Amino acid sequence: METPAHQSDHYFTDEERAAVYKCIYSRRDVRGQFKPDPVPDEVLARIIKAAHHAPSVGFMQPWNFLLIQSPHTKKKIHDIFLRANEQAADMFEPEQSAIYQKLKLEGIIESPINLVITCDRDRAGPVVLGRTHDKSMDLFSSVCAVQNLWLAARAEGVGVGWVSIFNKKELKQALKLPKSVTPVAYLCIGYVEHFYTEPELKSAGWRERLPVEDLLCFDEWGNMNRDGNEGLYKALSENID
Amino acid sequence: METPAHQSDHYFTDEERAAVYKCIYSRRDVRGQFKPDPVPDEVLARIIKAAHHAPSVGFMQPWNFLLIQSPHTKKKIHDIFLRANEQAADMFEPEQSAIYQKLKLEGIIESPINLVITCDRDRAGPVVLGRTHDKSMDLFSSVCAVQNLWLAARAEGVGVGWVSIFNKKELKQALKLPKSVTPVAYLCIGYVEHFYTEPELKSAGWRERLPVEDLLCFDEWGNMNRDGNEGLYKALSENID
Repeated sequence: METPAHQSDHYFTDEERAAVYKCIYSRRDVRGQFKPDPVPDEVLARIIKAAHHAPSVGFMQPWNFLLIQSPHTKKKIHDIFLRANEQAADMFEPEQSAIYQKLKLEGIIESPINLVITCDRDRAGPVVLGRTHDKSMDLFSSVCAVQNLWLAARAEGVGVGWVSIFNKKELKQALKLPKSVTPVAYLCIGYVEHFYTEPELKSAGWRERLPVEDLLCFDEWGNMNRDGNEGLYKALSENID
Repeated sequence: METPAHQSDHYFTDEERAAVYKCIYSRRDVRGQFKPDPVPDEVLARIIKAAHHAPSVGFMQPWNFLLIQSPHTKKKIHDIFLRANEQAADMFEPEQSAIYQKLKLEGIIESPINLVITCDRDRAGPVVLGRTHDKSMDLFSSVCAVQNLWLAARAEGVGVGWVSIFNKKELKQALKLPKSVTPVAYLCIGYVEHFYTEPELKSAGWRERLPVEDLLCFDEWGNMNRDGNEGLYKALSENID
C-alpha cells in the first residue's frame, strides 16, 4: 500500500492559532439577534462543508443536512417548540419557572435559515468500526459536525442557535424522518445584529461559569491531588475568559 | 437588568477566517504518530480551557477532565481496550475482520497524555433547561467540548485520537467514576511526527468520503429538489477538500 501523504503545513502561526481561539471564545448560542439578510450560497456551503469534515466513528459520516427555509415548515416546527416549551416551563419550581418563561430560547421564525443535522444510524450497516461498544458514537459524530459548523459560522460572522426543546416524535414526523434517522440538532442560522460577550444564561443569572481548575482530576475520579501538576493548575487558574 | 455587553470584534479578517478553516480541515484522528515529548502546562491548559468554553445545554457545563499520565493506569486502560478490540474484530465478516485487525486504532501507551472528558448527568439537578425533552443533550454538550479541544489542539500542533472501543462498565470501574458520570470520550494526546492529509480509514480503503451535496435535502427528508437552490449545490460541489 502507498504511504499516505503527510501534511506539509504542520504548524500554525501565532496569528492563526489566535484566530482559532478567538473563534472558540466568541462563539455564542444565538436566540434573538437574527437579521433577515440572506446568507449567500458560498457562505452556507462553506459552513456545511466544515460540518462534513468533522470526525466520525468508523468514517461513517452519519449526518444529513435538512435545510428549512419555507415559512410554512418553520411555523409548523415553531408550534412544536411552543407546545414543548410550555411543558418545560411547568417542570421547574415556581420561581425558576417565572424566569424560564421570560427567556428567549429560539429564533426559528426570525432566522433566515433553519438547518437540521441528523444521524442516520444505519448509514454503514449494523457493525461500525468504533461503535461496537458504544452505540452512541454515531450520534456523537453528528454533534462534532454541529460544533464544526458552529465555529465556521462564527468565523463568517453568522450566528447559530441550537434548539432542543421539542417532542422528538413530533419533530421527526414533521420532517418525515425515517425510523433510522435521529434529528441531532435543530439549528437557527443567520447574520446577527451583535454577538454577546457572555452566554445569555450567564448574563440572565441562570447559572455561573464553573472554575475550570475545579473540574480537573488525576488518574481516577475525585483525585484532586495536585502534586506534580501545580503548573497546570496555575495555567488553568489564570483568567483568559 | 443591565444590558449584556456586545462583542466589539464582530468580524473576522479573511486571514482569521482562513485559519479557522485550516484548523477544521487539517484536524485528524491520530492513532500512531505520537512523540514522547511532554506537552507544556500552558498548552495543555489552553486546550482544556477551549473545551470548557464549549456550548452546553442550560449552561450546565457537565464535563470533567480526568488526566491520565501514570503508566500503571494507562496499562490498565489499554488492557480494557485490547479485550474489547478482540470482541470487535469478531463482529465483522472474515474479510473485513482481517483488515480491521491490521488497523492501529489507539495510542494509549505511546501518547504522553490520556484525557477523559466525562458528563456528570446530575451536574445541574434533575430538570435542566434545554434537556427537558432530549435527555442526551448533556452528553452532546460534552461532545462539543471534545471537538473544541480537538481543534484547539490542532492549532497547537498537538494530535488527538478518540478511542471508543471499551466495555464501558470496565472503563468506569477502572476510573472509579460514580454512577451519574459517563465517560464520553477517551482521548490520547501528544505532539506528533506528522498529520496525515486524509483520514486514516479513507487511506486504508475502509470507507470513502461521501459527496456532501448528496447529503442535503429540503424542508423534509428525501426532498432533493434543487429548484431555487442551484447556487448552493454548485457551491457545495466545488471541491475544496
